[in-house]
Amino acid sequence: MIEYSNRRIKLNGGIILDNFRFYVPTDIRFGKDRLASELTQVLDTFGKTVLIVYGGGSIKKNGLYDQVIDLLEKNQNNIVELSGVEPNPRIETVRRGVELCRENQVDVILAVGGGSTIDCSKVVAAGFYSEEDPWEFIVGKNGYQGDALPIVTILTLAATGSEMNAGAVISNMATNQKLGVGGPAMMPKVSFLDPTTTFTVPAYQTAAGSADILSHLFESYFNVTEGTDIQDFVSEGIMRAVIKNCPVALETPNDYDARANLMWASSLALNGLTRNGKHGVWSCHAMEHELSAFYDITHGVGLAILTPRWMEYVLNEQTVTKFVEFAKNVWGIEDENQFTAAKKGIQATYDFFKACGIPMTLPEVGIDEEKFAEMAQQAVAHSTIKTDAFVPLTEADVEAIYRSSLTESSFA
Amino acid sequence: MIEYSNRRIKLNGGIILDNFRFYVPTDIRFGKDRLASELTQVLDTFGKTVLIVYGGGSIKKNGLYDQVIDLLEKNQNNIVELSGVEPNPRIETVRRGVELCRENQVDVILAVGGGSTIDCSKVVAAGFYSEEDPWEFIVGKNGYQGDALPIVTILTLAATGSEMNAGAVISNMATNQKLGVGGPAMMPKVSFLDPTTTFTVPAYQTAAGSADILSHLFESYFNVTEGTDIQDFVSEGIMRAVIKNCPVALETPNDYDARANLMWASSLALNGLTRNGKHGVWSCHAMEHELSAFYDITHGVGLAILTPRWMEYVLNEQTVTKFVEFAKNVWGIEDENQFTAAKKGIQATYDFFKACGIPMTLPEVGIDEEKFAEMAQQAVAHSTIKTDAFVPLTEADVEAIYRSSLTESSFA
Repeated sequence: MIEYSNRRIKLNGGIILDNFRFYVPTDIRFGKDRLASELTQVLDTFGKTVLIVYGGGSIKKNGLYDQVIDLLEKNQNNIVELSGVEPNPRIETVRRGVELCRENQVDVILAVGGGSTIDCSKVVAAGFYSEEDPWEFIVGKNGYQGDALPIVTILTLAATGSEMNAGAVISNMATNQKLGVGGPAMMPKVSFLDPTTTFTVPAYQTAAGSADILSHLFESYFNVTEGTDIQDFVSEGIMRAVIKNCPVALETPNDYDARANLMWASSLALNGLTRNGKHGVWSCHAMEHELSAFYDITHGVGLAILTPRWMEYVLNEQTVTKFVEFAKNVWGIEDENQFTAAKKGIQATYDFFKACGIPMTLPEVGIDEEKFAEMAQQAVAHSTIKTDAFVPLTEADVEAIYRSSLTESSFA
Repeated sequence: MIEYSNRRIKLNGGIILDNFRFYVPTDIRFGKDRLASELTQVLDTFGKTVLIVYGGGSIKKNGLYDQVIDLLEKNQNNIVELSGVEPNPRIETVRRGVELCRENQVDVILAVGGGSTIDCSKVVAAGFYSEEDPWEFIVGKNGYQGDALPIVTILTLAATGSEMNAGAVISNMATNQKLGVGGPAMMPKVSFLDPTTTFTVPAYQTAAGSADILSHLFESYFNVTEGTDIQDFVSEGIMRAVIKNCPVALETPNDYDARANLMWASSLALNGLTRNGKHGVWSCHAMEHELSAFYDITHGVGLAILTPRWMEYVLNEQTVTKFVEFAKNVWGIEDENQFTAAKKGIQATYDFFKACGIPMTLPEVGIDEEKFAEMAQQAVAHSTIKTDAFVPLTEADVEAIYRSSLTESSFA
């Protein structure tokens, strides 16, 4: 019979950090000039027929596509291609990928791109083995527990973290749904993270990707579970690294170390490290997914717009301590008055996104109030933010946060 | 042809963070009350004959041994035991373990203990498949590249991080050698991290373990490679978590969250996360290994004694910036004068260890100057600190650092 200290039980009613499992067997190959000597060796462990998945062709402009094709041809691989994966990947594209895998008896999927391409690849990999249509297990509540084709990734955008986790987000524009799904077999086996592949990422996407990384960190950092110092202090460290390096990458797109730090931040922000031991659901992602589902905007931009408004909205007597820590440990901001310190931290977050060139109001990305009520309803319907968020959010709360994003804001 | 920004090349002659591989497939089961439902299930995936490895019997006092035996008996496992693993595990014990595995056709090794027990288990696991005597591949320079028996661990001490990496340190008292060895197959398959198993760890061991964790972080943090913000900022976060939670665990040994943070810190401090992308060798471990090899002292205590003296010794115009960052980001100490700030950070480190009850001079742990010269020679001979350390160290440097540890110190 284990006895816990009275101190803790007094402090928080006996609530301690949650049990968790941390099992992230993705083999990360980080650095430059690795593909020539390692890519085909890795692929050969899974088989000769490769489905290459990619997006809109940026990899054709920067030479990565040619390099990969050349390596695979010299290695006598059978190459199948799924191109044109959308920024918010669609279920139709996933279905097309599953067909290609079945028709060609694909052995391994090689995702060359950012989170959208990798997410699409994951659901194709699962769909190959699934008897259901992929949309069925996406809308299901149990994730995907079956087999999947092995996935190797070559990451070209520091943003979603999909290269080192088992989750994916797929959109269905017919039903205005953008939903997440995950399963152990969907985790990439090997991910190549070469910072030089992101040298050509435009400023807007670099900033949006950094906002996505920060949002992943924020969503777990602002959480009700106590006692998770490791997770929180590690998260603050990664936040600081992104805040330091994103402006460097914007000013000097081929700064290797800046790109390297953003890239590694992307993977660590969403592989469980800053999240495990904590319960409750994310807030901003649930609200943003509706913006993307209805208006197909850039995910990271939607998150950047909503986040500071959400922070201000949930700031209260119960949450202020966490915001004070955030202001101090991430932004170096202190103030005798707790709420002043907290608001300055929120302002710093807003100012950072703005300085990175992100449009910080909804009208700037083509969204007006017309569908606020409908999107707010969907945000609550597609998640459990009404009960399990850091601060629970009703439809009215979500609508208020959308509304506060109509014009420029000032917090401090 | 990739072009790097001139800025970086100007700054550091084109030196960027190193390529690295991060592949840590240990399945971490973190939290309380998991063994009853998960342990035998995990073991059964490898086989029925289990070698249980443990140390001096603390697990018999706290009930963990009985619990494990009970679970395995009910599961009809064949149980083989290797007990009495030393705090600095010895090659003779390893050889005894290999014999037991071969005689009993062991399928899986269950290490129940701290780093010593797990390290011993790793080399037994490798020794089972090796045609050489284990000491041969330990003294070899190429690590261990062969197969190993699968290892499952139940961690009972937050310290070495052995539960989530592929390394081990084994002592040979006959030759006064304490040497590290590692290999991919030696990484534990599954590690159970239950903070409650550390509730009964005595204060002295809790403090020494925390010093060991901090030392692992320091050894990689103070490093010549530039551009490793993620690694460094994450490391600072883990340092802060240890510095916050160790005193809580000392005052309230059954504080779950404090023990949980120390335990998770142990694993993350030495699984590559804070180290990858950096080159060069560790300094304090090389110097401390000789203290342990000659005097068999507690590893973490030796590290705590040497570390602040080493910090002061290597503080100079080139390294001061890093020490200023350390003082600010870890201890919250700032000063207009760089060297003053740096020294205050070193003083804080010393004071922290002292406040944790660690004896902070060598004579307090039974070491006088008699063997300083010999140990300094060995420290340089067994490592590459003379060429590859943060600040290269000769035999004379090492001896000076030993000498400065003879009496109480004041740095700031």
